[in-house]
Amino acid sequence: MKFSIERATLLKAVGQAQSVVERRNTIPILANVLIEAEGDTVSFRATDLDIEVVDRAPAQVEKAGATTVSAQLLHEIVRKLPDGALVSITDDPAAGRLTVQAGRSTFSLATLPKEDFPVMASSEYTANFAAPAPVLRRLFDKSKFAISTEETRYYLNGVYMHVAEGEDGGKVLRCVATDGHRLARIDAPLPAGAESMPGVIVPRKTVGELRKLLDDDDSEIAVSVSETKVRFAAPAITLTSKVIDGTFPDYSRVIPTTNSRRLEVDAAEFARAVDRVATVSSERSRAVKLQMEEDRLILSVNAPDSGAAEDELSVAYADERLEIGFNAKYLLEIASQIDRENAVFLFNSAGDPTLVREGNDTSALYVVMPMRV
Amino acid sequence: MKFSIERATLLKAVGQAQSVVERRNTIPILANVLIEAEGDTVSFRATDLDIEVVDRAPAQVEKAGATTVSAQLLHEIVRKLPDGALVSITDDPAAGRLTVQAGRSTFSLATLPKEDFPVMASSEYTANFAAPAPVLRRLFDKSKFAISTEETRYYLNGVYMHVAEGEDGGKVLRCVATDGHRLARIDAPLPAGAESMPGVIVPRKTVGELRKLLDDDDSEIAVSVSETKVRFAAPAITLTSKVIDGTFPDYSRVIPTTNSRRLEVDAAEFARAVDRVATVSSERSRAVKLQMEEDRLILSVNAPDSGAAEDELSVAYADERLEIGFNAKYLLEIASQIDRENAVFLFNSAGDPTLVREGNDTSALYVVMPMRV
Repeated sequence: MKFSIERATLLKAVGQAQSVVERRNTIPILANVLIEAEGDTVSFRATDLDIEVVDRAPAQVEKAGATTVSAQLLHEIVRKLPDGALVSITDDPAAGRLTVQAGRSTFSLATLPKEDFPVMASSEYTANFAAPAPVLRRLFDKSKFAISTEETRYYLNGVYMHVAEGEDGGKVLRCVATDGHRLARIDAPLPAGAESMPGVIVPRKTVGELRKLLDDDDSEIAVSVSETKVRFAAPAITLTSKVIDGTFPDYSRVIPTTNSRRLEVDAAEFARAVDRVATVSSERSRAVKLQMEEDRLILSVNAPDSGAAEDELSVAYADERLEIGFNAKYLLEIASQIDRENAVFLFNSAGDPTLVREGNDTSALYVVMPMRV
Repeated sequence: MKFSIERATLLKAVGQAQSVVERRNTIPILANVLIEAEGDTVSFRATDLDIEVVDRAPAQVEKAGATTVSAQLLHEIVRKLPDGALVSITDDPAAGRLTVQAGRSTFSLATLPKEDFPVMASSEYTANFAAPAPVLRRLFDKSKFAISTEETRYYLNGVYMHVAEGEDGGKVLRCVATDGHRLARIDAPLPAGAESMPGVIVPRKTVGELRKLLDDDDSEIAVSVSETKVRFAAPAITLTSKVIDGTFPDYSRVIPTTNSRRLEVDAAEFARAVDRVATVSSERSRAVKLQMEEDRLILSVNAPDSGAAEDELSVAYADERLEIGFNAKYLLEIASQIDRENAVFLFNSAGDPTLVREGNDTSALYVVMPMRV
């Protein structure tokens, strides 16, 4: 194998591939990236056995071939090469070495045989559809904060992507995440071809890696879904991931439907006030009390050790006086999802789950459990 | 005590004071800042018992007084207040509470009596002199990387500031740091009044805190030195520190005087090449080999596990062929001190300490021990 490639192109391709590689590997080959050169393309493949990323980049291939080399080392080297350099990569299978050469810099890296690299088996996908990158980005960005980190509840360690009935009656592509304390439910118009999609739980790490495919606003992402796998393909990069083998709970039962006490507040202003009063709270119970009376919201924290804090906001609230407590972190995370509209809170009582919406937008909904204050 | 102060002014003053406070304190009062309001000034005093910082800021003092409050909490609160806010601070000694109020935000913080705050005893300073901030900045910035982190060699855990004879014969103000593997020796013209200064070892943490006083290029710093303490005073902030109670070793014996093999190289280009080849080296022994022959420098690393790397630079070298090994980190740290001139290396043999200079500048000198490669 022998090819030449522009340093910036190589850096991007190797960078995306290596990020999936786990830093601590007991299986040496999993620390490596599989480099395959053929035609006028070189591909870089990396895996942690659950997720596989393949990056393709244009290159001048002098001799086709394939080998594997430390992903992290290759990435570091390319990163440190001068901008604009032309990088020449040559495999010497007999010596078990890959040579990386640019200008007067030469690196010789230990390789492992390409045959040892665990290429992920392909799957029979039951649904294939295309979605614009910004649509997928919104679905996952706005829901991922609610993913549970409790390993025993493995079926909550991801975003549940499935087809559902939207609030307006039509079918939607929906992403839901929850950890039992808060829940996010984000909808998007159902893309053609997605109707038959089985619901899948996309693992947290996959959601993180996926984010890198979705940076380009103009790209259409080809999505393929089976019972066991999900694949996202952008023009130059394909991400394939196992999905979580479990059943996502029936989240609809925890979404309150009769909450009627309505508070409307500027989300950014609300977030800043929560953040300010939470300063005095002890690390463990970051409880913030909200007191609503006519068009007034008083936020307060009382931490016997360190002190007390109170803040007041002008809001739209026309119901009877209400006091309710929340974990400050949960309020901040939800408020930070709300960018274009006011945050609308719908309360029932101080002991019931609270609904949060973005203005009149029915495509995003959050639920947060109160805590005793 | 009651005063009003502009939020940005308060943030700066509290920020500088709180940075000296240790995060984990077994003595509660040491987590606090002593606030003293009188005339048209408020001062903020913090200490870790070895270093004391006093920040002064203009304020509208309605009622003079003093109290202490959590430095970290006050800093966090002020940081989160909106820019441009006028902050009103009121002490209620009977309740043991300090009220911080801005706009519609109110905080009530637990106080501790001002009498419990350990104000550092003043010292009889044997030398007082003034030095421009940039001069002191250069002395400490260029030497501090060589401070030892070995706690058993406590007398090397700081920068040795003293009066010495410069290379050009005159007296200089000199800062030296070493950890036994490398040494930095930086000189500045001796300020009037410094002649009688006792040599003092300024602790690492003090050097870090001092840096914040020296940001303003125009300010003159008043320096006071005694056998046990050193004080640096800028217009709005005074830093007093104990010095390390120990004897700094006679560093002049480790500075080679007869090294004659001269290599001159662009410092930035050299640093980038060292950084590149060091990529393949294993974490533990980051050994880089330098091979010099006529006007050529070859840098190489051979790490059996991961691979090998080689880089070549055009340099000025006219002596006989030489091979010598160094810790990559030490080379990088020294090279990064050299900004305006070429790096000049003076070698003796592969087993002897190497001298590094900045062009023809005699006011900065570095020594680095080689390692076997």
